[in-house]
Amino acid sequence: MQDCPADLAKLRERIAEMRDLSRIQSIVHWDMHTYMPSRGAEARKEQLATLSSLIHEKLTDPALGRLIQRLEPLMNNAREDSEETAVVREVAREHQRATRIPGRLMQEATRASSDGLQAWLRARGEEDFHLFLPALERNYDVSRRTAEVINPDSHPLDVMLDRREPGFTCADVQEIFSDLKETLVPLIARISDKSGQVKDSILHQIYDPARQWDLSMEAVRALGFDLDSRGRQDRSVHPFTTAFSTDDVRITTRIRDDQFAPCFFASLHEAGHGTYEQGLPARWNRCILGSAASGGMHESQSRLWENIVGRSKEFWQFFYPRVRSYFPEQTAGAQYTDFWKAVNRVQPSLIRVEADEVTYNLHIMIRFELEQAVYDGKLELRDLPAAWNEKFEEYLGIQPEAPSEGILQDIHWSGGFGASFVSYTLGNVISAQLFETAESAIPDLRERFRTGNFSALLTWMQENVHTYGKTLSPGDLVRQATGRDLSTRPYLRYIKSKTADLYDL
Amino acid sequence: MQDCPADLAKLRERIAEMRDLSRIQSIVHWDMHTYMPSRGAEARKEQLATLSSLIHEKLTDPALGRLIQRLEPLMNNAREDSEETAVVREVAREHQRATRIPGRLMQEATRASSDGLQAWLRARGEEDFHLFLPALERNYDVSRRTAEVINPDSHPLDVMLDRREPGFTCADVQEIFSDLKETLVPLIARISDKSGQVKDSILHQIYDPARQWDLSMEAVRALGFDLDSRGRQDRSVHPFTTAFSTDDVRITTRIRDDQFAPCFFASLHEAGHGTYEQGLPARWNRCILGSAASGGMHESQSRLWENIVGRSKEFWQFFYPRVRSYFPEQTAGAQYTDFWKAVNRVQPSLIRVEADEVTYNLHIMIRFELEQAVYDGKLELRDLPAAWNEKFEEYLGIQPEAPSEGILQDIHWSGGFGASFVSYTLGNVISAQLFETAESAIPDLRERFRTGNFSALLTWMQENVHTYGKTLSPGDLVRQATGRDLSTRPYLRYIKSKTADLYDL
Repeated sequence: MQDCPADLAKLRERIAEMRDLSRIQSIVHWDMHTYMPSRGAEARKEQLATLSSLIHEKLTDPALGRLIQRLEPLMNNAREDSEETAVVREVAREHQRATRIPGRLMQEATRASSDGLQAWLRARGEEDFHLFLPALERNYDVSRRTAEVINPDSHPLDVMLDRREPGFTCADVQEIFSDLKETLVPLIARISDKSGQVKDSILHQIYDPARQWDLSMEAVRALGFDLDSRGRQDRSVHPFTTAFSTDDVRITTRIRDDQFAPCFFASLHEAGHGTYEQGLPARWNRCILGSAASGGMHESQSRLWENIVGRSKEFWQFFYPRVRSYFPEQTAGAQYTDFWKAVNRVQPSLIRVEADEVTYNLHIMIRFELEQAVYDGKLELRDLPAAWNEKFEEYLGIQPEAPSEGILQDIHWSGGFGASFVSYTLGNVISAQLFETAESAIPDLRERFRTGNFSALLTWMQENVHTYGKTLSPGDLVRQATGRDLSTRPYLRYIKSKTADLYDL
Repeated sequence: MQDCPADLAKLRERIAEMRDLSRIQSIVHWDMHTYMPSRGAEARKEQLATLSSLIHEKLTDPALGRLIQRLEPLMNNAREDSEETAVVREVAREHQRATRIPGRLMQEATRASSDGLQAWLRARGEEDFHLFLPALERNYDVSRRTAEVINPDSHPLDVMLDRREPGFTCADVQEIFSDLKETLVPLIARISDKSGQVKDSILHQIYDPARQWDLSMEAVRALGFDLDSRGRQDRSVHPFTTAFSTDDVRITTRIRDDQFAPCFFASLHEAGHGTYEQGLPARWNRCILGSAASGGMHESQSRLWENIVGRSKEFWQFFYPRVRSYFPEQTAGAQYTDFWKAVNRVQPSLIRVEADEVTYNLHIMIRFELEQAVYDGKLELRDLPAAWNEKFEEYLGIQPEAPSEGILQDIHWSGGFGASFVSYTLGNVISAQLFETAESAIPDLRERFRTGNFSALLTWMQENVHTYGKTLSPGDLVRQATGRDLSTRPYLRYIKSKTADLYDL
């Protein structure tokens, strides 16, 4: 017991080293997706493989396991919510998971995922699901076996979900979806009767890419993401956020010259993720606690700034003059309320990443239900496309005409099969509950948006969410920040109030 | 003996892993100097330290030493110039050097170098050499002790030189400088009598940075550096080249809006380095042989394209119309020969990186003579500034008025003291000898430049220099490529012919 401080110091040293290496991995990935010349890909793959296996080696080092073992009993004596407890808990979790997966299975997963990506790209290009099916079957097999070795006593989807969203089970998620479905499906039907009331043709014009870029930079700065000394924005094919420390956070966006929304809202979305990374305590830069509580928690911040703020009437009252000054021709004769309506138009659509706030969660629910049906033996992978189309018909009243706008639209299943999408919906639901609490703490919160004042909201998120890093599970963090268990009610209140305003319901 | 192929495979596997990690180190450095937000520096330092010590651990692994030992005798039986021999020789060299330096000395060197950088920056800012002196003394001490542990039987400067330029001794370098001095000092005196004949005010005007950038990209593409699928150019404070594989080579440049030369010639210089990296055999991407033969050899390629090509009359006949189209006002009334003269103006000056081709080597010689005087106990570090000024008076007839344009102008001595500059002059000398040989193999070589045809020269360099990687020492490589020992004569012929043309000598 008296070795404990020394053991803790050793543990922290090992964590700091692994953390440095995984940050380096992020740097290498960032470069790969932003500036790497195309032919650099081949060598890059080898370099990343070497780095991954090095990190895996350190994480599964038996000496690390012995350290953890020596420290675990002490933790039972410590206050449960102490920082030390959390450190040991998190590293034990990762070490245990990594050691349970045999090296051979690990390599199989890497290969299945990289082959899966190639197969998916090809299948999508040729609009032929059957070109993807063998890779999907292999990925499903690997994902299932991996879940089984990690925890043979749980349902595989629960194991995978617990990895992404510690503490959540499929039953929790099912309950959330069932609440959402009950309200959203009839709401969508009511809106579809009034669909002529909101038009978005203003967003579909030629918008000069260089000006789109400058405008997005202005918006991101206005929200409070530090783009200067502590972060930056670049372009990539798929927008993403990555952090090399709390003082070096990178976001990316993409630009389509014939649409306003993709660049602008990707910037807001990633800036939301970015504020979380910039808001984590700097003292944890080399500590395992210096990360978001979960994928869903991370998503709550991106959705908050992209949707609750970035699609609010108050935000557009403030920001629309900026759009007008950049794009006077495109916005001629339109008021800020027209623009606000356009960016909120509700319309059942086929592509998840282009879906509006009301229909978005149904896209996620469909995917989750299909994953469950496969894992429960009720659906064969080869029958996925037909099942996909049926569910789209049932929930959204539309069906894809080609696999690329249906079953083959997302990259996720090319690298594994299971619980891949749930965090997006959790993020939506969490974001509304957090915002409702912030609003009751700061009554004129929305009013402040009208003058471009977002700092009170950002500070609230920093103090109630970001600063806790990974010390709390997402469920506990929500409870602590909002005083309640996670619930779909704030989200549904938010959606109902907004659509009532938009569509005079 | 029968384990040899297995041992060789194991050795290659270890080399590939170290190589991947050092490429990753380069990626992380590149980002640090191009896109990293300022406050990212602190975490980056830790990440790089972790990575370095990991690479050092692998390089000094006793198991690697045993592998090398088992393979060395075999090498004596193999053909001396076989690839295997070269691999074992190079890795043995690096392993031996790394293991001879005690960990404590290594850490001392790292600290001395990082503190030295801070002290140098401060001293330069305050124009006070004495603020730098303690750091310089510490760096000198560490450099000397490091050389002594690597090889106690050689002069420390010879040990350091051998690391940068395998096979070269201080005696060789002294001979080169003595040849150069004999011709260049009187030549400079003759030119100074006619200094009015060449003006360069055309270069000192406002040149729009965005256009400078585009022009430099055009020039780099024209020379044959692949800027598209296999490389790219970015901006940094100090221009540099780095390679993550033969198919991912990064060059950088800097832009001053009131000068034409810094951006343009930095781009040409780095593109020269870049062609070497792109020209190495791709099969050695993960092999120790996939690097330049030496620093001087690398410099020969940058000097070749920056100076011998990029400051040639033929190049400007081809390229001047492009400059005119980008900068019609700045070039109004000037002919290509005016521009060619301007970029070749000879004028004794204080700053090495701005020096012309004729006086440049004297800058290097001064530094080398000072380093020698210190190591031979004939000069105290505290007396360096006075000695510096005396030598500038003696060789160039001018003296700095402030330390920042004298003794404190270069970053090099802040990270170690010894043989830091010699490669630049070796590069100049080698470049001329290579070019002379290429010219006799391809008689209309210079003529081709007039129409923008540089591919014959690039191909010659690829076939006679790049393709050998590190299999040959720089001396052997020069001998093989040119049929002769390295000599200053081609360089002096080149300088004399050019200055005769410029100044009607």
